[in-house]
Amino acid sequence: MPQALHEQSASALVPQLERREITAEQLVRACLDRIDAREGDVQAWEYLAADSALEQARQLDRRPVQGLLHGIPIAVKDLFDTADMPTTYGSPIYASHKPAADAAAVALCRAQGALMLGKTVTTEFATFKPGKTRNPHGLTHTPGGSSSGSAAAVADCMVPLAFASQTAASVIRPAAFCGVVGYKPSYGMVNRTGVKALSDSLDTIGFIARSVGDVALFAAATTSDRGLLQLDVSHAPRIALCHTHEWPHADEDTHKAFEHAARVLALAGMPIRELQLPLLFSQLMQAQKEIMAFDLVRSLAHERLRQPHLLSEHLNQVLDSGLEVPIERHYANLQLAQSARGMVSNAFGAFEVLLAPSAIGEAPDTLTQTGDPVFSRVWTLLGLPCVHLPFFKGRTGMPVGLQVVGRHGEDKVVLRVAKWLMERLAPV
Amino acid sequence: MPQALHEQSASALVPQLERREITAEQLVRACLDRIDAREGDVQAWEYLAADSALEQARQLDRRPVQGLLHGIPIAVKDLFDTADMPTTYGSPIYASHKPAADAAAVALCRAQGALMLGKTVTTEFATFKPGKTRNPHGLTHTPGGSSSGSAAAVADCMVPLAFASQTAASVIRPAAFCGVVGYKPSYGMVNRTGVKALSDSLDTIGFIARSVGDVALFAAATTSDRGLLQLDVSHAPRIALCHTHEWPHADEDTHKAFEHAARVLALAGMPIRELQLPLLFSQLMQAQKEIMAFDLVRSLAHERLRQPHLLSEHLNQVLDSGLEVPIERHYANLQLAQSARGMVSNAFGAFEVLLAPSAIGEAPDTLTQTGDPVFSRVWTLLGLPCVHLPFFKGRTGMPVGLQVVGRHGEDKVVLRVAKWLMERLAPV
Repeated sequence: MPQALHEQSASALVPQLERREITAEQLVRACLDRIDAREGDVQAWEYLAADSALEQARQLDRRPVQGLLHGIPIAVKDLFDTADMPTTYGSPIYASHKPAADAAAVALCRAQGALMLGKTVTTEFATFKPGKTRNPHGLTHTPGGSSSGSAAAVADCMVPLAFASQTAASVIRPAAFCGVVGYKPSYGMVNRTGVKALSDSLDTIGFIARSVGDVALFAAATTSDRGLLQLDVSHAPRIALCHTHEWPHADEDTHKAFEHAARVLALAGMPIRELQLPLLFSQLMQAQKEIMAFDLVRSLAHERLRQPHLLSEHLNQVLDSGLEVPIERHYANLQLAQSARGMVSNAFGAFEVLLAPSAIGEAPDTLTQTGDPVFSRVWTLLGLPCVHLPFFKGRTGMPVGLQVVGRHGEDKVVLRVAKWLMERLAPV
Repeated sequence: MPQALHEQSASALVPQLERREITAEQLVRACLDRIDAREGDVQAWEYLAADSALEQARQLDRRPVQGLLHGIPIAVKDLFDTADMPTTYGSPIYASHKPAADAAAVALCRAQGALMLGKTVTTEFATFKPGKTRNPHGLTHTPGGSSSGSAAAVADCMVPLAFASQTAASVIRPAAFCGVVGYKPSYGMVNRTGVKALSDSLDTIGFIARSVGDVALFAAATTSDRGLLQLDVSHAPRIALCHTHEWPHADEDTHKAFEHAARVLALAGMPIRELQLPLLFSQLMQAQKEIMAFDLVRSLAHERLRQPHLLSEHLNQVLDSGLEVPIERHYANLQLAQSARGMVSNAFGAFEVLLAPSAIGEAPDTLTQTGDPVFSRVWTLLGLPCVHLPFFKGRTGMPVGLQVVGRHGEDKVVLRVAKWLMERLAPV
């Protein structure tokens, strides 16, 4: 039996839409039916633009096909401004906020023929306080954050593609917990205009889908870099395992995911090599925390000055901690990050990519927090491209995986190797 | 006769406000009177919040003194979001736009006791199409752009401090043309949240005032870096003249400003040394242009998709040129910028700062364009701190000057040397 429309990948849907074998309206209806059936449980959506999406779909069905995403429905993390949908940033301060313009990334995808299905739940200002979303693989488990709704909606086949963003771990962690592919591009690659700013030197727009091919297509449409569509590997990839300085945090499920990956690579005739990051990098996690807090209290200066009572207690604490970072320490942190960014390409040595933990293990069985960002803070600070691969199950059957990490700017290499690895780690 | 309130510096006003020798209301009334007398000619303001500023002033007069800018009125470039004033970004698309929040920099200054007097004219999306503002030193001359209204309002003593921003030359050029001090900090120093984004790797918030002490105070209030207030020089500054690779563009007035500076330095017993920038840097101007156009067409994707007929013809041309930059070339440009940023600190050699042209010469005698950004594009791309010093007059009596340029992150050095130089180049 062929896959139902809502279960198919964007890469599979696009040619059918281009050949008019299916209509955008059919596809949107399939997604809406799935949402109707499952949203009561999963709670991925902050706002669903059902009527408007159907109308956009009908318009696209009448228009000549153009663009990489003609007729493809996209979910937009509610941290991204949208001109035709409310945008809350996950905060009651913006409960009735209507932005004047779409975020650039949204507009760029509309120009490629995509239609926006709705806004997905984010934590409070993409920080710590969870939204209502549950993990579709286990409704008592967190979906991870801050791109909670985006990861859950894609995992539950409500939509093929969803925008996400990462300042600490907000693309990779929810992708890991929900068992989908999450791609955080190199820092600076995707235009951030119109996405609520938290930390200028960390904020990165990312992509969530159910396959590596789909995150690559999504990124190509957003950046107009068609080179991202070329995912064939011309030689055996040079991959190192990298347990990272944060390895002691990893649990048994992540250990087993590593062992599985090592076994598969060995079977593929590839020697298992470990990459040790420079000792200096062990300081980067703390630096990332401090830079993020320092920036957050400034980025949210208006909200903190005018409506502090509408910020959660925990966020107010984080903001206070940002005021306690002395300015000299902040500059030292930036200097450290700069040095590490300068060193990391050499640190990769002969390897093209590293395979590293995405999260401690399975999604915690709680809805009161979104899990620990420990395994992504350093890569975010370094600005490196990362792709989470959902190829494993943990002891309770929840998704587990690892992330592929590459050199800054080598997103094409990372995506190619990610696809190569996914085919071997989780053969269909 | 003591200076009228509207003519005084913020640094002189703050202690009088703190000792309650003057009230914030008196100061605001003095500024409003000046605006009333001169705005018909100068046209610096997009929106004047007269009543609200008086009300804010009365509130501050009743409140205990706290913050670095208690009672000081500030003008806000109309590229910065303000929650209580309209924000047009210089475009008819946003003629009736009311942002939901203040830009972070605005909120941070409010938290330091400042009050916002109104919004100053910017060119269209801070790019090329001039607004209505005229140069107060010669009403047929451009004030420069894009921070046209901010520079003109400060030059005309309508307000002591004004926010500005620079992507190519938008702080330094209007400061030069209007004869005021303009300070573009190191890239990354000032939080940009809530300022309309044009080019992520170039956009920098800046400060305009009538003295070096005032831009330093303004920056200290915005960043909470009180180290910026310490402007004493402990040793003879190590200054080089740097004519730059763009020197052939400079006219006779800029030649004379250089000669004057060289003479003053020689009289101060300082050898006149020239710094040659690496040859590679001659490619940076073109790279800056291409990076800016590449980013602009993406940052304005929403406006271009939805309301292209409300963009000026010239801006539409610039946006088109951004689409014509191949993605590989864009990445090569970013790589070149990265290399140059890595080299520039060494290129300074034993010198602490460079003295370089700010503009071709006097403000052109036209209101149809805002002058050539040729002498700031490279410093903006390099992210270096720059302070324009208005110490000279050109052949028709319009202001001319030079900019002090320092290493990235060495803003304190640049401000100290700028003050030291200003006292010698334009003795009171």
